[in-house]
Amino acid sequence: MNTSFFGELLNSITLQGRSLIDGRKGRLSEVPLGSLCDQLLSGRGEASGVAIAEEVLLNYGKLSREERLTFFRTLYQDFGADTQKIANLAKELAEKADDPVLQRRLHSASEPRRQELIRRLNLAPGGTKSLVAMRSDLLDCLAEEPDLKEVDRDFEHLFSSWFNRGFLVMRRIDWQTPANILEKIIQYEAVHEITGWDDLRRRIGLADRRLYAFFHPALVDDLLIFVEVALTREIPGAIGPILAEQRAEIRADEAATAVFYSISNCQRGLRGISFGNFLIKQVVEELRRELPNLKTFVTLSPVPGFTKWLSQSLAEDKGLAGAALSGQQLDALRDRTWQDNEELSKDLETVMPALGAHYLTQEKSRGARPLDPVARFHIGNGARLERVHWNADLSENGLRQAHSLMVNYLYDLKDIERNHENFAATGSVAASAQVTRLLRQLPEQKQTKSEA
Amino acid sequence: MNTSFFGELLNSITLQGRSLIDGRKGRLSEVPLGSLCDQLLSGRGEASGVAIAEEVLLNYGKLSREERLTFFRTLYQDFGADTQKIANLAKELAEKADDPVLQRRLHSASEPRRQELIRRLNLAPGGTKSLVAMRSDLLDCLAEEPDLKEVDRDFEHLFSSWFNRGFLVMRRIDWQTPANILEKIIQYEAVHEITGWDDLRRRIGLADRRLYAFFHPALVDDLLIFVEVALTREIPGAIGPILAEQRAEIRADEAATAVFYSISNCQRGLRGISFGNFLIKQVVEELRRELPNLKTFVTLSPVPGFTKWLSQSLAEDKGLAGAALSGQQLDALRDRTWQDNEELSKDLETVMPALGAHYLTQEKSRGARPLDPVARFHIGNGARLERVHWNADLSENGLRQAHSLMVNYLYDLKDIERNHENFAATGSVAASAQVTRLLRQLPEQKQTKSEA
Amino acid sequence: MNTSFFGELLNSITLQGRSLIDGRKGRLSEVPLGSLCDQLLSGRGEASGVAIAEEVLLNYGKLSREERLTFFRTLYQDFGADTQKIANLAKELAEKADDPVLQRRLHSASEPRRQELIRRLNLAPGGTKSLVAMRSDLLDCLAEEPDLKEVDRDFEHLFSSWFNRGFLVMRRIDWQTPANILEKIIQYEAVHEITGWDDLRRRIGLADRRLYAFFHPALVDDLLIFVEVALTREIPGAIGPILAEQRAEIRADEAATAVFYSISNCQRGLRGISFGNFLIKQVVEELRRELPNLKTFVTLSPVPGFTKWLSQSLAEDKGLAGAALSGQQLDALRDRTWQDNEELSKDLETVMPALGAHYLTQEKSRGARPLDPVARFHIGNGARLERVHWNADLSENGLRQAHSLMVNYLYDLKDIERNHENFAATGSVAASAQVTRLLRQLPEQKQTKSEA
Amino acid sequence: MNTSFFGELLNSITLQGRSLIDGRKGRLSEVPLGSLCDQLLSGRGEASGVAIAEEVLLNYGKLSREERLTFFRTLYQDFGADTQKIANLAKELAEKADDPVLQRRLHSASEPRRQELIRRLNLAPGGTKSLVAMRSDLLDCLAEEPDLKEVDRDFEHLFSSWFNRGFLVMRRIDWQTPANILEKIIQYEAVHEITGWDDLRRRIGLADRRLYAFFHPALVDDLLIFVEVALTREIPGAIGPILAEQRAEIRADEAATAVFYSISNCQRGLRGISFGNFLIKQVVEELRRELPNLKTFVTLSPVPGFTKWLSQSLAEDKGLAGAALSGQQLDALRDRTWQDNEELSKDLETVMPALGAHYLTQEKSRGARPLDPVARFHIGNGARLERVHWNADLSENGLRQAHSLMVNYLYDLKDIERNHENFAATGSVAASAQVTRLLRQLPEQKQTKSEA
Repeated sequence: MNTSFFGELLNSITLQGRSLIDGRKGRLSEVPLGSLCDQLLSGRGEASGVAIAEEVLLNYGKLSREERLTFFRTLYQDFGADTQKIANLAKELAEKADDPVLQRRLHSASEPRRQELIRRLNLAPGGTKSLVAMRSDLLDCLAEEPDLKEVDRDFEHLFSSWFNRGFLVMRRIDWQTPANILEKIIQYEAVHEITGWDDLRRRIGLADRRLYAFFHPALVDDLLIFVEVALTREIPGAIGPILAEQRAEIRADEAATAVFYSISNCQRGLRGISFGNFLIKQVVEELRRELPNLKTFVTLSPVPGFTKWLSQSLAEDKGLAGAALSGQQLDALRDRTWQDNEELSKDLETVMPALGAHYLTQEKSRGARPLDPVARFHIGNGARLERVHWNADLSENGLRQAHSLMVNYLYDLKDIERNHENFAATGSVAASAQVTRLLRQLPEQKQTKSEA
Repeated sequence: MNTSFFGELLNSITLQGRSLIDGRKGRLSEVPLGSLCDQLLSGRGEASGVAIAEEVLLNYGKLSREERLTFFRTLYQDFGADTQKIANLAKELAEKADDPVLQRRLHSASEPRRQELIRRLNLAPGGTKSLVAMRSDLLDCLAEEPDLKEVDRDFEHLFSSWFNRGFLVMRRIDWQTPANILEKIIQYEAVHEITGWDDLRRRIGLADRRLYAFFHPALVDDLLIFVEVALTREIPGAIGPILAEQRAEIRADEAATAVFYSISNCQRGLRGISFGNFLIKQVVEELRRELPNLKTFVTLSPVPGFTKWLSQSLAEDKGLAGAALSGQQLDALRDRTWQDNEELSKDLETVMPALGAHYLTQEKSRGARPLDPVARFHIGNGARLERVHWNADLSENGLRQAHSLMVNYLYDLKDIERNHENFAATGSVAASAQVTRLLRQLPEQKQTKSEA
Repeated sequence: MNTSFFGELLNSITLQGRSLIDGRKGRLSEVPLGSLCDQLLSGRGEASGVAIAEEVLLNYGKLSREERLTFFRTLYQDFGADTQKIANLAKELAEKADDPVLQRRLHSASEPRRQELIRRLNLAPGGTKSLVAMRSDLLDCLAEEPDLKEVDRDFEHLFSSWFNRGFLVMRRIDWQTPANILEKIIQYEAVHEITGWDDLRRRIGLADRRLYAFFHPALVDDLLIFVEVALTREIPGAIGPILAEQRAEIRADEAATAVFYSISNCQRGLRGISFGNFLIKQVVEELRRELPNLKTFVTLSPVPGFTKWLSQSLAEDKGLAGAALSGQQLDALRDRTWQDNEELSKDLETVMPALGAHYLTQEKSRGARPLDPVARFHIGNGARLERVHWNADLSENGLRQAHSLMVNYLYDLKDIERNHENFAATGSVAASAQVTRLLRQLPEQKQTKSEA
Repeated sequence: MNTSFFGELLNSITLQGRSLIDGRKGRLSEVPLGSLCDQLLSGRGEASGVAIAEEVLLNYGKLSREERLTFFRTLYQDFGADTQKIANLAKELAEKADDPVLQRRLHSASEPRRQELIRRLNLAPGGTKSLVAMRSDLLDCLAEEPDLKEVDRDFEHLFSSWFNRGFLVMRRIDWQTPANILEKIIQYEAVHEITGWDDLRRRIGLADRRLYAFFHPALVDDLLIFVEVALTREIPGAIGPILAEQRAEIRADEAATAVFYSISNCQRGLRGISFGNFLIKQVVEELRRELPNLKTFVTLSPVPGFTKWLSQSLAEDKGLAGAALSGQQLDALRDRTWQDNEELSKDLETVMPALGAHYLTQEKSRGARPLDPVARFHIGNGARLERVHWNADLSENGLRQAHSLMVNYLYDLKDIERNHENFAATGSVAASAQVTRLLRQLPEQKQTKSEA
C-alpha cells in the first residue's frame, strides 16, 4: 500500500525506453566503430560520453553478422589489458608479492579495457538492453571463434554484478497485466508451448493458476525469467491434466499443493547469470504468505536426458538398462506400442520409474553433479527428488526425450540448506523414501561410474 | 501514459524494504563476523547465501565504532587478493606476457576477495542500502587508518558499476510527493538550509520553483542527489530574492531563465560516484521540453574558496590582490563595514568581481583544474563562467567564504562538448565576454602559477 | 506527473470488485425478493442496508428470465409512488399551487419508491455494475411489457445523474493496457469487427493509431464507450486502407488528419445516456495538444439508412432516386456488377455520392432531425457533412446498408457551437461546399417532406 | 496487486483538476448569472453546455457574499417547479390518481428546475468541487434566509446520489502519502487538534497508529472524512496517553484493541450526507483482515453534551444530579479543584461515570434518540456503550464540555445489526454490563422524560 511514489519512478524509465525507440533516428556515424570505442574510453569527462555511447550502440545495431564478428574480434584484440604495464608490474611484484597496492595496480592493469568500455556503453539510454542483445550476438560467434570466450567472460562478469539478485523485482503476471508483457510470455515460454491468447489466459487468468516473473529496472517492459504454477489438491503425476483446456477449476484456498510446471529464461544474453533458484524460493515464500493452506511445493519436471542415457546404457555390455528391461519391454518402448496397450504400459510402469530414479540420483557428470540438467538445477538448489511418473508426458517431445517420464522435485524450505550442503559435500542426491524404494527394485549392479 | 505496469514493479521493492525493517529481528549470530564472511564466500551455491548475507549485515549493524574499525581491518588484511597465486602467475607471465588467458587469470587472482564478498552481501534484501551505509562508516576511518583506502577503492569500484547512470531514475519532487521523501529533502539540503515544511513548500509548491532528484531502484524511498531550480525572467544576481518568503510568483510560461541555485548530494556512502553532471543536463532537457519559453540555463553558485585565496594572495609579496585593493577597501572587507555603507560597497564592486573572475578562471590546482571546487565541477561539465556578482550572498557563510560573491555558470547544451574538450586540452576556462572584460580591469601581473 | 496517490485510490475499488466476484458465495435468501426490497426501503438506518442490498442483488442474479420479468412487474406495481398521498397533496395544492413547500412534498410523494430502492441497492459493493446489468435485462422486456417503460425511466433518470460527464475518466488504450480491458475492446467493437489479438494490435499498437475510452470509477475494469482513431496525411475515402493488414505506417508527427473511424457504446444498460459527443470532443482536444501538426478532425462513417431510403424513394412515384438513376445503373446496383466493372463503377460515382448527400442533408425524421441515425448523432454534435465517398466500404454490411457509401463528418471546434445552434434553430444540416455542389447535380425535385 | 491500470485512470482526473486551476483565466462573462443559468437549462444539446457551465461556475466564484445571497434567492424564486403545469396535472389527477404515467408527469413537473441546473453545472471540469463549495456558501445563508432551505434540499438530494457509498474509496493515509493530502489532514482535524507535521507523523507514521479516509473520484486531492486509530493492548481510559509525544510504541501484531479516537468530516458542503458509519465499519473489516490479533474495536469518544445536561439537571427541582452529588463534589467540579487533589478526584469517580452513563443511555431527544450527538451517532450505528471514564480528557475543551468524562463505544460486527434493530424498535441504548452496573449506583428517580 501507498507505494505509489516509488512506483511512479519507473515511469521515467519507461519513457526513456520509449523515446529511445522513437529517437534513434540519429545519422549513422562515419567513424569506424573501433575508433568510436577508443574515443569513448579516452573521454576525460562525462560531457560527451553519453552521446558517443549512443552512437556506438546505434552503429552496432546496423552491422551485419559478419561485421559484428569483426567488431567482437576488435574487442578481443584491441581492447584487452595493457601487456607492457602488466609485464612491468609483474617484475616489481617479484620483489614484494604481498604489497596490496601493487596487487591492486596489477589487478587494474590486467582488466581488459573492454570492461570499462562496456560500463561506459551502459551510459546510453537503453544501454543495458542493447548490451544484453550484443552479448546474445556474441554467444552466436563463440563456437566459430573460441577466443571470443574471453570477451564473453567480461560481459558475464559485469552482468553478474548488474543483475545481482538485489536489483531484481518479482511480479505476479495475470490477466490484468499489460498486453505487451503478456505477448512476451507467449514468446518466451520454453517448456510447454503456449498456443495463443486463450491458452495464456488459462495459465494466468484462473483462480488455480499463477505466473511469477523477475524484472530488472533497466530492462524496460521485458522479463528475465518466469515460472508457471498450478495450485492443486494433490501432487500431480502428468502434465496433460495441468494444461487441459477443459478441467475443473478449484478455488485457491482449496489447494494444498503448488506445482511449478514450467520455468523459462527469457534473455539469452544473460546466459550464465542464474535467477531461477531465487525466483522459485521467493515464489514459495509469497505463496505461503498468501495461501496458508498450501503445504507442498513441488515441480512437475521433464527428464530431458533420460532417453539418451537409456540408449547408452543399453549399448553397454552388462548395462543396467539391459539387465532391467525385457525384450518385449524394449520393443514396446521402441515402437511406442505401449501407448495404445494398457497391459504393456502397466508392465513398463513396473520398471521405468525405477530406471528414471536411478538415472537421476546415480548418474553423475564431471564434478559429481547429476547428469540430467534439470536435476542438476533443482538438486543444486537444495530440492529433493520426490516422485517419478510413468506415462506422464505424452507430447512428442516428452516421448522422445524421456519415454513419457516426468518427476517431482520437492522444495521444502526447512530442508533446502541441509540438502544443498549435503549434496555439495558428498554429491549425494536427496530423494524421498518412495524414490529410494524404486531404486531397490533394480537388479544389483556394478558401482555407478561418473562420466570422465 | 500507460506506464503503470512497470511502475507497479517497484511496489515489491518497497515491500522488501519494509519487511526488511520489520523483519530484522533475527537473533544475532554468535559466529564472528569474519568467519561469517568466509562462509559467505566459500558457499558453493546460492542456497544459503542470502541468509548468511543477511546475518552479516545484521551483525554489522550492531557493531560499535571500535568494532567496525576492526571489521574493516579484517577486510583489509584477510580479504585481499591471493598473494601466492599472484606470484605464481606473475612468474608464468614472464614467459608470455601477452597471453590473454594468463592475463585474465592474473586479473582474477589479483581481485581482492572482498569485492566478491561485497557482491554477495548485496544479495540480502536491502543489501545495497546497508552497503552504502557501511562505506559511509568506512570513510570515517580513512584518516585514522590510511591503509583502509584499499578497501574503500573496492567499494567505490563496485558502486560505480551499480550506480551507473543507466540505472538512475530522475523524478520531479513537488508538493504531491510523499512526506517521507520530502522530509529527506529538508534533511539533505546542503547549500541553502531549508528551515521547515513552509520553507520547503515555497521551494517545490509554487509555479516558478522546481526540484528534481535522482533515485536508484535499490535504494528504496531515498534520494541520491537533487537540484533546486528557480524559474525567473532574468539571470539573478543574488540568492536573497530567490529564497525570500514574500516575493512575486510568476507563471512558469512567463519565465525565460532556469536557475540552478542549489545542488545536494544525499548519500555520503556514494562519495566519488558522480551524478550531478548527468542530473543538471537531464533537467535542462526536461525543462526545455516542457517550457519552450526557457532560453537560458544558469546556476547561481557560491565561490567557496575565494576568501581563502584572497588572503593568500594578500600575504604574497607582489600578489595580485594587494595590487588591486586599496587600504580602505581592505579595511572595509575585513570589518564588513561595506554592508552598511553603500559608498564603500559600490567602491568594492569596482574590483571584487574582477578578482573573483580572476580566481575562478586563472587560479588552478594540480592538474590544471580550477582551484575552486564548485568551478571545477561546472567548468568540468562544460559550463561557462557567465557572471560574477558582488553583494550576492549576505549569509554568514556567504560572507565568510566569498565576501558575498556569487557567480552564474551557464549551461548551453550546444557548447558544452566544445567547452569541455577545450578545457581538457588546454586547461582554459570558458568565460563570457563580460567576465573577460572584468579580467582586463585588473592590474598587469606576472604569469599565474599553478599550485604545485 | 506525480498523480500517483490519487491513482492508488482506485486500487481499493478494484479490490472491492474482486472480492465481490470471489465473495458472492453467500447463501441465497429464502425471503422473496419483493419483501427484501421492502426491508431495504424500510430500514431506518444504514446498519443493515449494505447487507440487504447485497442479498437482493445476489438473489436477482440467480433468477430465470421469467422470474426477472415478474420482479420487474413487482417494481412497476408495488414500488411506484404513494397514490393516496399524492391525491391528498393535489387537493391541498388546489388552494395554493405556488407554495414551494407543497410542491416539494408533492414532488417527493410522486417519486416512485423504486428510485430510492435503486439508490440503496447501489450501496452494495459492485452495486452499480449489477444495476447496469439489471437495466439491460429490463430493456429486453420492454417490447413485451410496455408498462415497464415507467420502471426504465427511473433507471435512466438515476443513471444520468450517476454517469454525469463530470464523473467520467478518459483514457488512451494501447498495447500497454491490461489484457482484461483489451479483450473487452475486441468484444464490444460494434462497427468494424476486430478479428483477434493481431487485428487489435494493429489498431492500438502502431504509431498512427489511437483508441480512447471513457471509464467510470464505479464500473471496475469495464468501459463505457470507445473511439478508434487513425492518423493520416489526407482525409480518407474508404475504410479498406485503414484496416488493411499490410500498410505503410507513418509517424504520428507526420499526420495532418485524425480520423474517427469507429465508435462503440459498451454498456447496453446505459442506453440513452450519451457519452459519444463528449468523448469525441475530448479526444480532439487531447490530440491537438499532443500533436500540433494535426489540422483536420473527421470521421469516416457509415450511412446505415441509405439503402433503405433509396429503395423507398425508388418505389415512390416521381421519387428523386428514380429520376436520378438510369436503368443500367439500377441493374448494376442490384446485381453488384459494378464491383468487377470499373466503367460501371465510375458511372455510378457520378450520381451515388450526390444521392447520399441528399439523403443525409435533406431527408428528415420526425422532429426535423436527419433520418440517418449516424448523421443525427454527428450533426447534432455540431459536426459538418464534409465528403461523401463511393466505393468506400466493400464489406457485406457496407454494401447492404449503403451500396458502399461512406462519409466524413468534420469536427471543427470553433464551428461546432454555431453549427449546433443553427441546426437546432432551423434544422439545417451543416455541409461543406463540396457536398453542396453534389446536391446541385441532382434533378430538380418537389420539396422534400419530413416523415410524419 | 496489478490494479495499476485502473489506478492510472485517475491521473486524467487529476490533470483535469490541475488544468482547471491553471486554466480558469477565461474572461468574466457580462451576461447576468441568472440568464446564463437559463441558457444552460434551455440548451437543446450538449454542444455548448460544458462551456456555459464553466462560465457560470467561474462567475459565481467571483461573487461577493451579498451577490451570492442574491444568486441563491434567484435559485429559490426563478428556478423552482412549474406552478401552472403542476396545477393542471393536479386537476387531471383528481380523476385518476393512480395512473402511473400521470404520477410521473407530476413528479417531473414538480421537480425544481434548479435540480437539472445543478446536474448540468456538474458537466464543467471540476464542477463537483465547485458545487460542494457553493452549497457550503448556501449553508451560511440559511439562518438569515430560511426559505433557502428549499434550495438546500435540492443540493442535498443530488449530493446523496452522487456521494452514494458505492462511489466512495477508502484509503489508508500514512507517512508515504503526498504532502498535499497530509496538510489537509492537519487542517481538517476537528476533535483533537494536530499541532504540526511532527504531531501528524506521530499519528500516521508509527507502527501502532493508523488513519483512514474516504475519497470521491470527482473531488480531486481532497478528503471526505477520516478516522484516526490507535492500536493498543487494552481499552484506553484517557486521551492523554494516546496523544503523548513520548510513549512506548508497540508493534501492530502486539495490539489486541483498535481505538477510534477521532473522526472528522472534511467537507462542510456535504453536511447531511453521512459517511462515518460506513467508514468505521470498513476500517474494522480492513483491520481484522490485516491484523487477526485485534479482538476489540472501540472508540474513545467525547461526551459533548454532558456538562450542559448536568447543569440543567442540577437546576431542576429533584433532578438526578442534585440527588447524586454532594455539595463538596459540586464545589470541586465547579472550581476544578479535583484536578490537583487526588482524594477529591477519587471521590468524584464514584459518581460521575454513573451520571455519564445515565446521561448517555437514558436522556433522549425528540424522536427518542440519545440527547448526546456523539452517542446518537454511534448508538445509531449499532455500537454499544462499553465504558465511562472519569479524568479522561483534561484539555480545556474536555473539562468544559464533559468535566473530563470520555467513553468507549464498542463495535462488535456480529451485534451491530441486532443493536441497531433493537434501538430502532424500542429506543433502548445498548450498554455493557459494566455500564448497567454504573446505572444501578444512582439514586432512584422519577421516570426519565424525553425532550418535547
